[in-house]
Amino acid sequence: MTHPVVIALGGNAILRRGQALNAENQRENIRVAAAQLAEIHNNHKLVIAHGNGPQVGLLALMGAAYDAVEPYPLDVLGAETVGMIGYMIEQELGNIIPADDHIVTVLTQVVVDSKDPAFKNPTKPVGPVYDRSEAERLQAEKGWAIAPDGPHFRRVVPSPEPRRIIEIEPIRLLVEAGIVVICAGGGGIPTAYNGSKLYGVEAVIDKDLASGLLARSLNAKQFVMLTDVPCVYTGFGTDHQRAIRRAHPDALEEFDFASGSMGPKVEAACRFVRETGHLSSIGRLRNLCEIVEGKAGTLISNVVDGIEYADDPR
Amino acid sequence: MTHPVVIALGGNAILRRGQALNAENQRENIRVAAAQLAEIHNNHKLVIAHGNGPQVGLLALMGAAYDAVEPYPLDVLGAETVGMIGYMIEQELGNIIPADDHIVTVLTQVVVDSKDPAFKNPTKPVGPVYDRSEAERLQAEKGWAIAPDGPHFRRVVPSPEPRRIIEIEPIRLLVEAGIVVICAGGGGIPTAYNGSKLYGVEAVIDKDLASGLLARSLNAKQFVMLTDVPCVYTGFGTDHQRAIRRAHPDALEEFDFASGSMGPKVEAACRFVRETGHLSSIGRLRNLCEIVEGKAGTLISNVVDGIEYADDPR
Repeated sequence: MTHPVVIALGGNAILRRGQALNAENQRENIRVAAAQLAEIHNNHKLVIAHGNGPQVGLLALMGAAYDAVEPYPLDVLGAETVGMIGYMIEQELGNIIPADDHIVTVLTQVVVDSKDPAFKNPTKPVGPVYDRSEAERLQAEKGWAIAPDGPHFRRVVPSPEPRRIIEIEPIRLLVEAGIVVICAGGGGIPTAYNGSKLYGVEAVIDKDLASGLLARSLNAKQFVMLTDVPCVYTGFGTDHQRAIRRAHPDALEEFDFASGSMGPKVEAACRFVRETGHLSSIGRLRNLCEIVEGKAGTLISNVVDGIEYADDPR
Repeated sequence: MTHPVVIALGGNAILRRGQALNAENQRENIRVAAAQLAEIHNNHKLVIAHGNGPQVGLLALMGAAYDAVEPYPLDVLGAETVGMIGYMIEQELGNIIPADDHIVTVLTQVVVDSKDPAFKNPTKPVGPVYDRSEAERLQAEKGWAIAPDGPHFRRVVPSPEPRRIIEIEPIRLLVEAGIVVICAGGGGIPTAYNGSKLYGVEAVIDKDLASGLLARSLNAKQFVMLTDVPCVYTGFGTDHQRAIRRAHPDALEEFDFASGSMGPKVEAACRFVRETGHLSSIGRLRNLCEIVEGKAGTLISNVVDGIEYADDPR
């Protein structure tokens, strides 16, 4: 069999910052992404993962606005976004690849350890903003953790480490048959075991770490994370910012990257490269084809010596 | 290969009439259904379809309550319910079948003919109720068809005939590998072609007709529709009501059945039996095992002579 390329679409590939959260904007952005993904499908087995942050927030807001029914838990909202986003990716990509090729969206449950230290330290903000009194009421009533968010408060939930993908065998079967698979949406639906019983947990799994687990589990030949910058930088946002063209995992991990954004991407990339010996890349959607060819973005590989910087980040 | 049993869960297997539309009620009902489905999985390849009427209505209400974003179209809401319901069925069933067995939820797009006569005669009520002035405003603004619903008005949408399941090849591959597949949720996401491009349509596909298409496409050995009555009756609700134990499609179709409920079930069953020569059954969830053995519910088969009535409907 040939190994697949696993591509993780950042949230901004589906909904750009500041855009209204409506279906039409999502579909237009997904259409742009689909054109790039179709090029990869021409030459590689393709597995697509994606974020769901804005979408799960939207569903939480809609649920809060309709008070005749108590709000749905995060695991169920996550499952809903997987249907929403998977559908649009599948339809738009299906419209531009050959008619005989197949795409399938697979609901993905990801197991976390119920004793993960993240459960004692919830950090990931989700859902609507509240004023202090409302936030404190919800904290008392529902046992939520809350944290300040500018002048407001938001619920924060744990972001535990993904351990295992429940549906990995069906996903592998589909990939081996040459079917494009959309899965691990939003980092997968967070679940844990109580004895032998799986249940949904109120958490959010980092999309990049979950995609990395997916890529390792499938022994992907390349694991690509798409974001809104052209590559990984040292000193990002400073006068000494430098674009990284290629790096060995050991060299890359000597730097600190932003914990909410580039940090988990670098962590996921390095772990994938160490475990599989294959390539990982980080870059921008519009450069996807060049990224897969190693000509754009940042390439992380065991065979690179140290770090090579780029003069022309793209 | 062995042929699968296709089981269509009625909406009331997931949410009973009058129950609050919350996640906990859905999960409890699904847990009951899962216990029955697990028994079938022990002896047969299993494919599960399900309704989504109450859930798609709920998402429409939530969307209407949150007016910062314009409401999502029906195809996207349908995709969301497929994630929500598929997740709960997959998790509950997964918790009671052997640990090495696999279940997968597959997002399903169903193609309808854009010239289907149903598009000229929308009949299926969806979403919230409105008063007359609001309904007329929405009719003018969005081009919706509206219809009276008691003292209120509701949007009505077409219910076109399902023609083809886009994901049938991946579904077949999974079924042949012995994986339990949850698909065609809510009758599938309604789509149509504009030239070679697939797009979502504002319609609702009858769940029983879509499940029947699924069962025919997979050449199922048995196609079971579960509902809230123990079997098909002639003269249902009259003094002359008689329970049907077994029937030939020709004999069954001589009767009229309620267009919104038993009618499409009988239509789907008869078409399945005629095209495949295999068995179809209609009955109640709690009798599922006996139904699959032909010992409860109504069995529709080419080898039955006319109609046989039952003394003890179950």
